[in-house]
Amino acid sequence: MGRTSDAKEKILTAARSLIEQRGYVALGVAEICKTAGVPKGSFYYFFESKEALALAVIDEHWAAERSDWTRILGSDAEPLERLRQLFEATQASQQAGKETCGAISGCMFGNLSLEMSNQTEAVRARLQEIFEAQAEMVGAVIDEARARGEVAVTDTRAAAQSVVAQLEGQVLFAKLYNATSPLTTLWANCLALLGARVPAQV
Amino acid sequence: MGRTSDAKEKILTAARSLIEQRGYVALGVAEICKTAGVPKGSFYYFFESKEALALAVIDEHWAAERSDWTRILGSDAEPLERLRQLFEATQASQQAGKETCGAISGCMFGNLSLEMSNQTEAVRARLQEIFEAQAEMVGAVIDEARARGEVAVTDTRAAAQSVVAQLEGQVLFAKLYNATSPLTTLWANCLALLGARVPAQV
Repeated sequence: MGRTSDAKEKILTAARSLIEQRGYVALGVAEICKTAGVPKGSFYYFFESKEALALAVIDEHWAAERSDWTRILGSDAEPLERLRQLFEATQASQQAGKETCGAISGCMFGNLSLEMSNQTEAVRARLQEIFEAQAEMVGAVIDEARARGEVAVTDTRAAAQSVVAQLEGQVLFAKLYNATSPLTTLWANCLALLGARVPAQV
Repeated sequence: MGRTSDAKEKILTAARSLIEQRGYVALGVAEICKTAGVPKGSFYYFFESKEALALAVIDEHWAAERSDWTRILGSDAEPLERLRQLFEATQASQQAGKETCGAISGCMFGNLSLEMSNQTEAVRARLQEIFEAQAEMVGAVIDEARARGEVAVTDTRAAAQSVVAQLEGQVLFAKLYNATSPLTTLWANCLALLGARVPAQV
C-alpha cells in the first residue's frame, strides 16, 4: 500500500506543477506519468480520466488554500485586519512561487476558470463551489466589520464577490507582469470597495 | 489577390472563434485550416507559426475593442458617465456573445494572459501593451474626473489598473457562471474604487 499511495501522490504533485506551469489542456497523461516517474498503468489505477485528475488536483489545492484562509480569516484579529493579512499572505505566496519556479503562476482556480470553464461542466461546477466558499468566508468577515460599523456595505454577498474579483484581477496582472507589485494595492482597494476608511498612507 | 486575402480573413475568423471557445494551446493548425475551409499551405503563406497567428488574432481583436473604447471614453459625456457606459457596453457584448455561442467567452486578453503568459514571451509582451493601453485610456478619464473634483484618487495609474482589474475579475466570474450578472456591480465598484459618490440605488 505504501508504494501505490506514493504513486498517487507523485502523480498529483507532478500534475499540480505541470498545470501551474502550462495549464491543463496542453497536458497529456503520458507526460504527467513521465514527470511523476510512474508507469502509465498506475495512472488509470488511481484516476479514471484526465478530468478526474484535474478535479483531484483542484480539491487538494483548495484543501490547502482553504486551511490558510480559515486560519487567517478566523483569527482573533480585528475583521478588516484579517482581510489585510489575507492579501499579504497571497502576495507572499505568489512571491515564493516566483522564487521557486521563476514565474508567477497566479491563482490555479482563476487560471482554470478561464482555460476550462467552457469545456468541462464537472470542473466548472467545482470551481464555482470554490469561489462561492471564498466569497462566503470573506462575507463572514465583512459581516463582522458591518456589525462594528466599520464598513458601508448593503449587500454582503456582492461586496465579498467584488473583493474576490479584485483579487483575481490583480493576480491576473501579477501573472502577466511576472511581478507581485499589482497585489500591493489590494488592501486599499478592498477598503474602498467596502466603503471603509482608507489608511492615510495610500 | 481577392482570393488570398479571403483565405487570410477566413483563417483569422476561424482562429478567433476557436480561441474564444477553447483557448489557444489546444488548437492545431490543421483544425484551424479545416474550420476556415482553406488548405494548410495557405496558413504558412500568411503566418509563419501558430504564435504569429495568435498575435494577429490579438491585434485584430484589440483594434476592434480599442475603437469601441475610444468612442465611449472619448465622447462628450461627463467623465464618470463614460466609465459607466464602458461597463454597460462590456456587459452587452458578453450577453450578445452568449446569445450567439451559448456560452460567455469572457475577455480574450484575460483568457490568454492566464493561459499563455508563462509560455510565449511575444504574446505576454503584446498583452502587457494592451492592458497598459486600457489603463491609460481609463486613466485619462479619471484625470478629467479628478480635475472636476469628482473622485478622490491620488495615483491615477494605480486607480486605473484597479478599475481594469475589477473588470477582469468580474468577467472571469461571468465566464465561470455563464451569466452577465457579476458585471452589474462594475459601476458601483468603480465609483467605490475611485472614491466617488456611490449613487443612492446601489
